[in-house]
Amino acid sequence: MFEKVLELIENNQLAAARQLLIEWNVVDIEQLLDEVPQDKMLRLFRMLPKELAAEVFAEMDSEQQQYIVESITDREINDIMDELYMDDTVDFIEEMPANVVKRVLRNTDETTRKTINQLLNYPDDSAGSIMTTEFVDLKKEMTVEKALSHIRKTGMDKETIDTCYVISAQRHLEGEISIRKLILSAPETLLSELMDTNVKFVQTLTDKEETAYIFRKYDLISMPVVDNENRLVGIITVDDVIDVIEQENTEDFHKMAAIAPSEKEYLDTGVFSLAKNRIVWLFVLMLSATFTGSIIRFYEATLSQVVALTSYIPMLMGTGGNAGAQSSTMIIRSLALNEIEFKDLFKVMWKELRVGLLAAFMLAVVNFARIMIFDPVDVFVALTVCASLFCVVTIAKVVGGILPIIAKKIHLDPVIMASPIITTILDAVSLFVYFAFASTFFHIA
Amino acid sequence: MFEKVLELIENNQLAAARQLLIEWNVVDIEQLLDEVPQDKMLRLFRMLPKELAAEVFAEMDSEQQQYIVESITDREINDIMDELYMDDTVDFIEEMPANVVKRVLRNTDETTRKTINQLLNYPDDSAGSIMTTEFVDLKKEMTVEKALSHIRKTGMDKETIDTCYVISAQRHLEGEISIRKLILSAPETLLSELMDTNVKFVQTLTDKEETAYIFRKYDLISMPVVDNENRLVGIITVDDVIDVIEQENTEDFHKMAAIAPSEKEYLDTGVFSLAKNRIVWLFVLMLSATFTGSIIRFYEATLSQVVALTSYIPMLMGTGGNAGAQSSTMIIRSLALNEIEFKDLFKVMWKELRVGLLAAFMLAVVNFARIMIFDPVDVFVALTVCASLFCVVTIAKVVGGILPIIAKKIHLDPVIMASPIITTILDAVSLFVYFAFASTFFHIA
Repeated sequence: MFEKVLELIENNQLAAARQLLIEWNVVDIEQLLDEVPQDKMLRLFRMLPKELAAEVFAEMDSEQQQYIVESITDREINDIMDELYMDDTVDFIEEMPANVVKRVLRNTDETTRKTINQLLNYPDDSAGSIMTTEFVDLKKEMTVEKALSHIRKTGMDKETIDTCYVISAQRHLEGEISIRKLILSAPETLLSELMDTNVKFVQTLTDKEETAYIFRKYDLISMPVVDNENRLVGIITVDDVIDVIEQENTEDFHKMAAIAPSEKEYLDTGVFSLAKNRIVWLFVLMLSATFTGSIIRFYEATLSQVVALTSYIPMLMGTGGNAGAQSSTMIIRSLALNEIEFKDLFKVMWKELRVGLLAAFMLAVVNFARIMIFDPVDVFVALTVCASLFCVVTIAKVVGGILPIIAKKIHLDPVIMASPIITTILDAVSLFVYFAFASTFFHIA
Repeated sequence: MFEKVLELIENNQLAAARQLLIEWNVVDIEQLLDEVPQDKMLRLFRMLPKELAAEVFAEMDSEQQQYIVESITDREINDIMDELYMDDTVDFIEEMPANVVKRVLRNTDETTRKTINQLLNYPDDSAGSIMTTEFVDLKKEMTVEKALSHIRKTGMDKETIDTCYVISAQRHLEGEISIRKLILSAPETLLSELMDTNVKFVQTLTDKEETAYIFRKYDLISMPVVDNENRLVGIITVDDVIDVIEQENTEDFHKMAAIAPSEKEYLDTGVFSLAKNRIVWLFVLMLSATFTGSIIRFYEATLSQVVALTSYIPMLMGTGGNAGAQSSTMIIRSLALNEIEFKDLFKVMWKELRVGLLAAFMLAVVNFARIMIFDPVDVFVALTVCASLFCVVTIAKVVGGILPIIAKKIHLDPVIMASPIITTILDAVSLFVYFAFASTFFHIA
């Protein structure tokens, strides 16, 4: 479908291209415009019907948005701003340079300007930052018929009419009612009889992640947001929540690999930003590994007496690190999904202890057999390695299981206890255990 | 709010408890019932209104569901089955033992039984396995008025009426129309003039993950599912898609830590299952680390000549592994979100090469300074270590960046190129590079 329109545009048959485009989904239109030279993109964009143009505009990245705003007339800016939902408006304005913001705000009315400024003030991680202000508000004294006619009058500009909110004269949230219930009920019924008063809602400053959790728990499509005086000020819709969920997951993936999180996509991020997001943790981890190295140096005498011990160090540290990373990852994920709380600490500890003993035993036995069969070393080396392996894996499981829970309890992000950190901690543990056993078995130190 | 009801139940005032309960959200009711002794839970459950009981039943875990079904009458089973949406019915039946399934199916009508059997046949990872069959179907010859009256008649039993689907006499999907458009349009308008013919849909066998991607891309609330003859057979709603997204993310987190994925929550998984899911990869990785060990053994002569070199091995392997894990994690996540494709391979390679050189240079310089200042070793040791570090980090970045893309291209899950695997590969690379430099600088081998 793309080829045909691209060919028309290539041949400057923009009117024909437009004719096909306006039947498309806005996301597809945006994707096509993204592949077209900017001057033609602009001409095509200006040919779109007002409402569609605004929808496409909302989908664009900020570079395209800036180019468009800087190329169109005040009148056209005004049209777009009129049609944009408030959450998209704010997302757009947040990314623009000051002079563009000024020009855009000049082309909006007083009330919109006030709302924009309010929304811009909510912290990035708050429910307020993802809400929109276009929702249907009803009064409980209305009949179904009156409510429906109110919706017919005002619904066109609302982000959703699937759920409507019932508010008092002071704009306090009193209940909600689905469009389905309205349609299926008798016209003369009062909303007060129909509405659901047990509404799940959040405050403007509630954390985005917490908000996403409530959506997921109660299978919501939209949720109202109230200010600190309990007045209804906006709604959040599920499509924005899905973005929050994926964003949080990406952040967690990155943190687990010791990368400072960034909001930009990989291909859009410059080499210096990428390097900057990674170098700090690489430094920290490199320096802690130096500490591990100094443990080895401390036991250099032991090693030079039984040189064979050296070659098992990578296996021991590696297995300990992997065993710990498995546990910490499982627990971190369960914490993120609210499946585990602090009160489960001892349950987790006990479970990890048993899993650890079981896994450690099997690994140690297999490893002992392998060393005795394949490696030209004496039995005391094998015993040192396998006794250490047994202890290290067991410790790794328990430590990996409880550190994230403790981190969360003391208000640290549990994810920092992921693989690189836990591995570094366990590297040191592995070596201490290893040399302790070596000293015992070989009576050296 | 929980305490009060729990107290009433404690004192056997079940009727009073029920009175409070029926005002609650179903998810909260289910959560409360989960905390009550089973006999009281059952009595309370049977006191709930039919429709609410079915909704609560759908939220329960399979253990509770089985207990209830085994304790209630055929008549009551029939009532629940009548009210359950088809996707919840299938989820429930999938987890029941054969005798329970038999009894349940005996208490459903012929058509439902046929539909259940059909749905049970869709593979676990397909769109068909998460769809439901309760949707509103309209005909394009209908007027808005007729459509609304059709919805009023049949809408009560549908999972959503927010989007309705227009089908032909052969049940082929012809278009969709939102309830919002219906309500905001003049009663005499024909659906054929209003409906959107550019509908995003999937087939029953489309992958769940692909389905979730389409939802996210187009901000959908529900999406139609067609069979291989293009007949509309069901719809998928966004709440189920969110569960798919979180499930896929959990799976990826687990795979990245070398854990075999499982669908159960951590606390519900037994010690043996947990151990089983982890032990295989621990074995594999332990054995590959043995290979790393044998590299050290091969160069034992070198090490015994310059024992100081040993203490830098953990730092070198650790930093290489971390640098590679950063790159592979970023790329794996971008692949999962469809931000990167195979055609970007060289772009990624080039970017990682530059990031790698930059990071490697900084790490090597800092490390050189640190060694010269703090460690009692000669300059050739420092040179060996830092030259190796520079090469290893650069290689790690490039390899970490491209391996996941290549894995995807040859239809392997890119996630297997995550931290433990890439780390193990890079461990070997680190040692080879290290000993190569050592041989050069010290003229030994």
